[in-house]
Amino acid sequence: MNVEQAMALAIGRSESVRGTTSPNPPVGAVVLDAHGEVVGTGATRPPGGPHAEVVALAEAGERARGGTAVVTLEPCSHHGRTPPCTGALLAAGIARVRYAVPDPNPLAAGGGAVLRAAGVDAEEGPLGLEVARGPLRAWLHYARTGRPHVTWKYASTLDGRVAAADGTSRWISSAESRQEVHALRTKIDAIMVGGGTVRADDPRLTARGIPVERQPLRVVVGKGDLPPGARVLDAEAETVHLRTHDPDEVLAGLAGRGVVDVLLEGGPTLVGAFVAAGRIDRVLLYAAPKLLGAGPMALGESGVATITDAVGLVVEEVSMCGPDVRISAVPAVVSG
Amino acid sequence: MNVEQAMALAIGRSESVRGTTSPNPPVGAVVLDAHGEVVGTGATRPPGGPHAEVVALAEAGERARGGTAVVTLEPCSHHGRTPPCTGALLAAGIARVRYAVPDPNPLAAGGGAVLRAAGVDAEEGPLGLEVARGPLRAWLHYARTGRPHVTWKYASTLDGRVAAADGTSRWISSAESRQEVHALRTKIDAIMVGGGTVRADDPRLTARGIPVERQPLRVVVGKGDLPPGARVLDAEAETVHLRTHDPDEVLAGLAGRGVVDVLLEGGPTLVGAFVAAGRIDRVLLYAAPKLLGAGPMALGESGVATITDAVGLVVEEVSMCGPDVRISAVPAVVSG
Repeated sequence: MNVEQAMALAIGRSESVRGTTSPNPPVGAVVLDAHGEVVGTGATRPPGGPHAEVVALAEAGERARGGTAVVTLEPCSHHGRTPPCTGALLAAGIARVRYAVPDPNPLAAGGGAVLRAAGVDAEEGPLGLEVARGPLRAWLHYARTGRPHVTWKYASTLDGRVAAADGTSRWISSAESRQEVHALRTKIDAIMVGGGTVRADDPRLTARGIPVERQPLRVVVGKGDLPPGARVLDAEAETVHLRTHDPDEVLAGLAGRGVVDVLLEGGPTLVGAFVAAGRIDRVLLYAAPKLLGAGPMALGESGVATITDAVGLVVEEVSMCGPDVRISAVPAVVSG
Repeated sequence: MNVEQAMALAIGRSESVRGTTSPNPPVGAVVLDAHGEVVGTGATRPPGGPHAEVVALAEAGERARGGTAVVTLEPCSHHGRTPPCTGALLAAGIARVRYAVPDPNPLAAGGGAVLRAAGVDAEEGPLGLEVARGPLRAWLHYARTGRPHVTWKYASTLDGRVAAADGTSRWISSAESRQEVHALRTKIDAIMVGGGTVRADDPRLTARGIPVERQPLRVVVGKGDLPPGARVLDAEAETVHLRTHDPDEVLAGLAGRGVVDVLLEGGPTLVGAFVAAGRIDRVLLYAAPKLLGAGPMALGESGVATITDAVGLVVEEVSMCGPDVRISAVPAVVSG
């Protein structure tokens, strides 16, 4: 197996642990022996557990000596809750290291340099963009900004309605799209709505219909009290109620809880506040081929008065999800 | 060249005359000699002129004898303003005819049978779906229902707004999308808005920025008078003002003028009336990757009160147009 194939395998291992590693990155690693045979694979264990490289090296044992470690992120060189991965790679006798993405964290960075200084052939490897846009996207944003990454997910008709005139909204999007959203909920750390949504729709905010190892943290934003019997207060998952309307206070509160990747499923007021603050990092729209002609919109007041002030995005992917059109877009200018 | 390649060429010829042949269909034809060489091509001339087969046969001359005629639509067998094409094919000594789409018109149908009765090997050929969804789509709808085909075209932001809170809407969609819409305007018979749009935006409703042989008919719908200086009343193109709000009265009026293919670019009220009446045959949305959070919507009251009554569509194509997402959708149930 060549390095690019090994990196693709490492990405797969990385994807498999998304949503279980925060605040650490979901890293994947593959160890090839000196002949290019896969002798170990690994992915980051939950916080306090070993990093991906260590897992893969343990599986490889003596066969790692003289081999290649292929990792989605530059190996760390600092003592955190676990010893540095650079030490483990050196101790195992790895001759060559390829990492898809350099570590943006000033505390952890320099793993490549440490390895090179010790005589290891360590360089950036292939598929960096795939990793940076994929499994490490939220964590890289968090490492760069200190804020959790926010994906605003919504479903609307082609005429932009999220519910009918009488407020009914079930089945706007297709069964396929709803199933995909439940799968997405298992891959993120927290799912966020406003208190108004809790009072109006009483959502459960859990991942359902698929095997779930852990439920995401449920986050309710807003100053008003929640109804005592609200479903978000049940025992199916943990819930936190943040009594503020300020997106940065919300994100700081979540970062303090180790949340890196947030799915925003809120109503127009909460989403409008996040858009106005420049705190939407990705827009994920499921556009259902339906027309309503009346009913509420996905996005409320966002501080935009005239067309030249519209919030600019760039479409990064368009695809079908069953009968619906899935559009993923990111800000045209990355927020600082 | 084989029959499928010839049909693709015929489709190209057909596309080249879209918007110039109504109420006749924009047909394309290719004549291959007995060795499969292209010896003639043709497309429907404006009303009163020769049909595609006749143009192609004239170019082929004696080389058509024993050859194959490849046509996008079943050749007509009736005397209209021109003699039947079946007669021209027989007179030219064509041995084989392949047509992509059978003629749905009860007056004209039976050309295939006439040819077969005369000993010609005449059958339906390849690429029927491509023709039926492409150059002959509007005409086939018109032949089946007696009503012009209506494409509702609009541009909105990802949150479903067609203008900002202050009413500004220029440049919602990209330069690429606007250019494509101008090109589309040269391929249709009529462009339709409501009187409210004329009074509010004073649009020109012409195809601009590209070579234009003829401008589409401008259609204004509504009972109110138009401002005397309105641009739609200038000399750049013909304009008709239909003083009704009933979509079927509008379509009957347009059919009476030989209009087969209409582009609806109206505001929410007019479009809502067409949606409520089931008179939208295609939705063409240019979704711009922008967010506004306020401003008007594309579609107004359409008689839908609850989600289960939403107008169901099927997405037939999704693609990019510059930075925008182009979505083409058709009714899930074809209107009768």
